[in-house]
Amino acid sequence: MTHLATERAAPALPRAARSPHQPLAIPAVRLGEGGVLGGWQRRNAEATIGHCVAQLESSGVLDNFRRVVGESGAPYRGFVFADSDLYKTIEAVAWEIARSGTDRWDAWLDDVIGLVARVQEPSGYVMTWIQGVHPEKRFAELHWTHEMYVAGHLIQAAVALDRAAGRDDLLRIATAFADLLDRRFGPGREEGVCGHPEIETALVELYRHTGVERYLALAQRMVDLRGRGLLKVGNLGATYFQDHAPVRQARDAVGHAVRQLYLNAGVTDVHLETGEPALLEAMQAQWDSAHHRKMYLTGAFGSRHRDEAFGDDYELPSDRAYAETCATIADVHWSWRMLLATGEPAAYAETIERELHNALAAAVGDDGTTFFYANPLQLRPDRFSEENAPRERRAWYSCACCPPNLARLLAQVSAYVATSTDDELVLHLYADAEIDVPAHLGGGVLRVETSYPDDGAVRLRHDGDRPLRLALRVPSWSSRTVLDGAPAEADADGYLRVDLAGAATLELDLAPRWTRAHHRADALRGARAIEVGPRVYCVEQVDLPDDVALDDLVVDERAPLVRADGATVRTTAAVRPRADALYGPTEQDLSAGEVAVVAIPFARWGNRGSSAMRVWLPVV
Amino acid sequence: MTHLATERAAPALPRAARSPHQPLAIPAVRLGEGGVLGGWQRRNAEATIGHCVAQLESSGVLDNFRRVVGESGAPYRGFVFADSDLYKTIEAVAWEIARSGTDRWDAWLDDVIGLVARVQEPSGYVMTWIQGVHPEKRFAELHWTHEMYVAGHLIQAAVALDRAAGRDDLLRIATAFADLLDRRFGPGREEGVCGHPEIETALVELYRHTGVERYLALAQRMVDLRGRGLLKVGNLGATYFQDHAPVRQARDAVGHAVRQLYLNAGVTDVHLETGEPALLEAMQAQWDSAHHRKMYLTGAFGSRHRDEAFGDDYELPSDRAYAETCATIADVHWSWRMLLATGEPAAYAETIERELHNALAAAVGDDGTTFFYANPLQLRPDRFSEENAPRERRAWYSCACCPPNLARLLAQVSAYVATSTDDELVLHLYADAEIDVPAHLGGGVLRVETSYPDDGAVRLRHDGDRPLRLALRVPSWSSRTVLDGAPAEADADGYLRVDLAGAATLELDLAPRWTRAHHRADALRGARAIEVGPRVYCVEQVDLPDDVALDDLVVDERAPLVRADGATVRTTAAVRPRADALYGPTEQDLSAGEVAVVAIPFARWGNRGSSAMRVWLPVV
Repeated sequence: MTHLATERAAPALPRAARSPHQPLAIPAVRLGEGGVLGGWQRRNAEATIGHCVAQLESSGVLDNFRRVVGESGAPYRGFVFADSDLYKTIEAVAWEIARSGTDRWDAWLDDVIGLVARVQEPSGYVMTWIQGVHPEKRFAELHWTHEMYVAGHLIQAAVALDRAAGRDDLLRIATAFADLLDRRFGPGREEGVCGHPEIETALVELYRHTGVERYLALAQRMVDLRGRGLLKVGNLGATYFQDHAPVRQARDAVGHAVRQLYLNAGVTDVHLETGEPALLEAMQAQWDSAHHRKMYLTGAFGSRHRDEAFGDDYELPSDRAYAETCATIADVHWSWRMLLATGEPAAYAETIERELHNALAAAVGDDGTTFFYANPLQLRPDRFSEENAPRERRAWYSCACCPPNLARLLAQVSAYVATSTDDELVLHLYADAEIDVPAHLGGGVLRVETSYPDDGAVRLRHDGDRPLRLALRVPSWSSRTVLDGAPAEADADGYLRVDLAGAATLELDLAPRWTRAHHRADALRGARAIEVGPRVYCVEQVDLPDDVALDDLVVDERAPLVRADGATVRTTAAVRPRADALYGPTEQDLSAGEVAVVAIPFARWGNRGSSAMRVWLPVV
Repeated sequence: MTHLATERAAPALPRAARSPHQPLAIPAVRLGEGGVLGGWQRRNAEATIGHCVAQLESSGVLDNFRRVVGESGAPYRGFVFADSDLYKTIEAVAWEIARSGTDRWDAWLDDVIGLVARVQEPSGYVMTWIQGVHPEKRFAELHWTHEMYVAGHLIQAAVALDRAAGRDDLLRIATAFADLLDRRFGPGREEGVCGHPEIETALVELYRHTGVERYLALAQRMVDLRGRGLLKVGNLGATYFQDHAPVRQARDAVGHAVRQLYLNAGVTDVHLETGEPALLEAMQAQWDSAHHRKMYLTGAFGSRHRDEAFGDDYELPSDRAYAETCATIADVHWSWRMLLATGEPAAYAETIERELHNALAAAVGDDGTTFFYANPLQLRPDRFSEENAPRERRAWYSCACCPPNLARLLAQVSAYVATSTDDELVLHLYADAEIDVPAHLGGGVLRVETSYPDDGAVRLRHDGDRPLRLALRVPSWSSRTVLDGAPAEADADGYLRVDLAGAATLELDLAPRWTRAHHRADALRGARAIEVGPRVYCVEQVDLPDDVALDDLVVDERAPLVRADGATVRTTAAVRPRADALYGPTEQDLSAGEVAVVAIPFARWGNRGSSAMRVWLPVV
C-alpha cells in the first residue's frame, strides 16, 4: 500500500505552543529531485537506505538480535551499541515513507520489527549486547553500556514510523522500554544517567507523540541528574561525558563532541516543553561556545581525535579535525531546536545551511554508498595516518554510527526548509520545492524554483486568493541581494518580507569571496578560504600540475576569484620552492611563475580518488 | 667508601673501533656546578635522585617487588612496566657515582639490589607484574607486557653500575635475565620482539661491557625480526609499534614517538658494532624524517596525544604538542650514537644542545622535584584540557617514565660534552668544565670557563708540554664567531680548529634572533619565534599587563630584540582588539598602542604558577 502523509510526519514537533515557529510536515515540503537537496533525498532513497539495510545484515546487527532468540548461531558482532544502527535505519525508512509514500520497505519493516518484538522481554527490555553477551551488566555500567542511548534511537525510530506511516508496532515496543526506564530511573527512583546522551531528546519526542507526561518528566530527570557525578568516568574524565558540571552551569561545549551536541538537543527539547529559562540560557551560552569558538568553517565539530573531543577555544586544526559526521548531524538537530526555542532563526538557519552544504554533503560520496566518519579540512600529500580518518570514503565502519545517521537526516531534511508563524511562511533554506501553504496563511502551494546553491536565483510563485506573506532568509554573506531586479534589504532579524501575489524572483549574491578566521585560531593564521554562498571550497592536488605540490601554493586575496564551469572557482597562486630547513632565519622566496588554481566545493572533495586537499590556503 | 672513577664510566662506549670519535668517561669531564649543565647535575644529585628514590617507595614500585617474595601484602600498583622506574633510578645513581664518587646511595643500592635478587627466579626471570599478577602471561603477550623493555632498563642500570662503581651484583642479575632471553628468543629459537623497543640498545651495551657476543646477536635479531608482523598490534595498528615495515626499509619516523626513538638508538648501536651499511642508511633517513620534518623547535617529538605519536610531515601544532619528555631523552641517546656512527658530528651535537637547553631543561622545575611529561609549546588562557599535559609540573605521574629518565640523563650529560679523535679533542657542548685530555693528545687538563648559554664567551686554557689540537663546534646560528678578538670561521664540518697553548677565548654570537618555520608547517604559519643561541624563548601571560591577553599580541620581526636582565629578551607588540566573529571577510585592525613584551627562555617557563604561554608569536 502507499502510505498516507500525515500532518505530524516530521521530527521535533513541540507540543507546547511556546515557539512562534511551527514546523511543516515532511509531506508538505516536496523537494524537487532535480534540485540539490532533493537530489540528495533521491540518492538517499535509491542508494543509501538500501545500502544501510544490506549492511545491517552483513555487519551482523540483525544476527545480534536473532541469536538472543535462538534464530542464529553467530557470535555477537560490533560495538555494544550496534542495535542503534538498526533503529537509525528504521527511522530513515520512516521519514522516507513520509517523503515519498514508498511501500518498498514494508515487508522489511515487518521482518525487523517482528524480530525486535521477539527479542524484547516481558519487562520491556531490549538490548542485544546485554541480553546476549553480558546479562549481568544490565543497568550496572551505565557509563559505557549505551543502554539508554540504544533505547533513545528505538524511541525516535518508533515515533517517526507512527508519525510517517501510522504504524505503531514499533511504538508499542519503544513505549514498553520507556516505561521500564521510568519504573527504574524515574522521579523518586534510582538515580542514573547514560554515558552517551540521546535518550533525552527521544523521551521528549515520545511525550510529544503520546502526550504521556511521565516521558517528559523522565527526560527532565536525565537532564537534572547530569553533572552530579553519577557516572563512573574513569580515565576519560567527567568532561568526556559532560558529567563535570550540572547542565544549567555548563556553559562551554566540551568533551566528546557528539555526546555534548546530542545532550544539547535534548536539553533544548526539554526547554521547548517546560519553558524553563535557565535551560535556554545555558543552551545559548553552549551554542555560542560551540559555534563562535569551536566550529570548523565546514560546520563540523570536534578538534581532537583523542577522546573525539571538542578542543579549547579557537583550537581548530584543519589536518587533525576529527569533525565526526554524527557531530554535525547532532548540531543540525540542536540548532533547529534553538531556532524554534528562540524565535530568532537567522543564525541557526544559516548554521544548518552551512552544515548541510559542507560537512554533511561531503560525508556521502556521489554514489550514496560510501561515507566519511571524520571530516578533516586538510589532507597532506603522502603519509596521512589513517586512524578513524581514511583518505577515501568507506562503505561502512566498524563503528557504523554515521551512515544510518546520514540516511535519517537526509530523509527528514525537508522539515528544515520552512516554518510558519501566525502570519508568515518563513523560508530558512533555499531548495527547489513545492510547499503546501498552511490554511491559516491562505493555503495553496508555494512553488520554489532554483538550482541554489549552484545559482543564486530563487523563483517563487504562489497563486492564491490573497497575497502570501513570505519571510525570506537573507544570508549574512549575501552582499547584494536583489528582489525582482531591485536591491533588497533584510529586516533586522535577517529576513526579507514579501507579500507574494503571483511570481517573484530573489537573487542571492553568489560572488566568490575570501574568508579569514579569528586571529586566535592559530591553526588558520596566514591563510584564507574560498566561499561561494553557503559553500566552502577546497583545492585538490588532482587539479594541479604534476610538478606543483598543493602544500607549496601561496594565494593572494587580492587575486580575482572567477566562477567557472559547474561550481568551480578559478584563481591563481604563486609556488614556493621546496626547502629543506625546518626552522631558519629567513623568508622563503616565491617563484616567479604563477599557477592556475581550481577550487571545488568541499562538498564534492574526494570523489576522484585519494588526493591531497586543503580548505585553508596560505597567503603568507 | 668513595668510589673510584673508571675509564669506562660512560654510556654508549662502542667496542668496535669504527668511529673516529671516542667518548670520554664521565669522571674525565667535570662540569662546574656554577655553570648551566653542572648546575643541573648538582640539582639532580641534591634533589631529583632522592625524590625518585622516595617515589619508588610511595608509588608502590618497591612493594611490587616485595609482594612477590612475601615481604609485602600490598596490591600491585602502577603500570605493567613499573619495575623500570627502579632500574632507571639505579642507573641515575650509577652515573651520579661516576660523576661525584658519592657513597650516599650505597646502602640503598644494597637494599634494592638485594630485593631484586630475591625476586629473580632461578631461570633468571624477574618482572614483578608477570610474577606477581599474571604469571600465565609470561612471554605470551609481548606486544604489551613490556617484559623485554623492563629487562632492557635492568641491563642498562647494571652496566652503568659496574662501569661507574665496579659493582657487579646487579650485573649478575641482568646477565641471568639476558641469558634467559637468549635461550628463549635467540637465533634459531622462538621468534618474538617486544612491543616497546629498549632491549636492543641495552643488549648492545651488555655486549660492549662483557664482550659476550650472543648479546649482540640477540640485539641484532630483535632488529631483524621487527616489521615482520610478529606483534599482535590490535586497534593501535602496526605503525604504533614500528612493526609496519622491516627496520632497513622504514624510512619515516612514525607511530609512538618514544618507541621509534628508542628503537633507532638500538639500531644505531647495532650498526656501531657490526658496521652494516643498510642499518646506517636507514637511520640517516629516519634521522632526517624525525629532525627535518617532525621535530618541534624545542627539540621535542610527538605531535599527537592520540597514540603518543609522530604526526605527518610538518604536522607540528604548538598547542597539541604531546612532546613527551622521554622522546627527547631517547633522541639525545640516538643522536649521540649517530654522531659516533657518522663521524660528522655537527648536526647531531647541535640537536643534542637544542634538546638539552629547551625541551629537557623545561621538563624539570627549578626545585628539581617537579616534572613535565608532555611539553607543549603553547598553553591557551583558560580552558586547557589536561589529558597528559597538566598546566604545571607535577611531582610524579601514574605513568612515571619521565622523572627517573631525566635523572639518568642529567647524571650522564657530562659524557656528551666532548670526544677525542686520533689527533683532536672535539668540543660538542659548551659548559663550564675541567676535561682530562687523553694521553694520546698530550694529557693534562683543559679548563673551560663559561656561563654559556647565558653568555657567549668561552675561555679555554690548557697548560701542557705541547699545544692541544681543539675542534670547537660553531653552531649554525652563530652569525659572528670570534676567537681571541678576531673573526673566526669554522671548517666545512662546522668545527673551528685551534692549537691551544695557554689560553684562548671563543665568543659565540648570542644576539637574539627571529626564527621562522618551513612553509609547510601549517600550525606555525604567520608566526615567529625568538631564539638566543641554543635557547628558544617564550612569552608568558604573567609578564603582560592584566588587560592584554597573550593571544591578542602581534609582533613585528623588524622590531628590535633587546637582551635585558638575566636571560630575558624585550621587544614590542601590537594588540588586536577582541572580535566575536569566528570567520569573516575582513582583516582585523590592530590597536594604535604598543605593549612591551618580555620573553624568557622556554627552559624556564611555568616556574611562576599557571599562565598562558606561547613560543610562536603571530606576525599577521
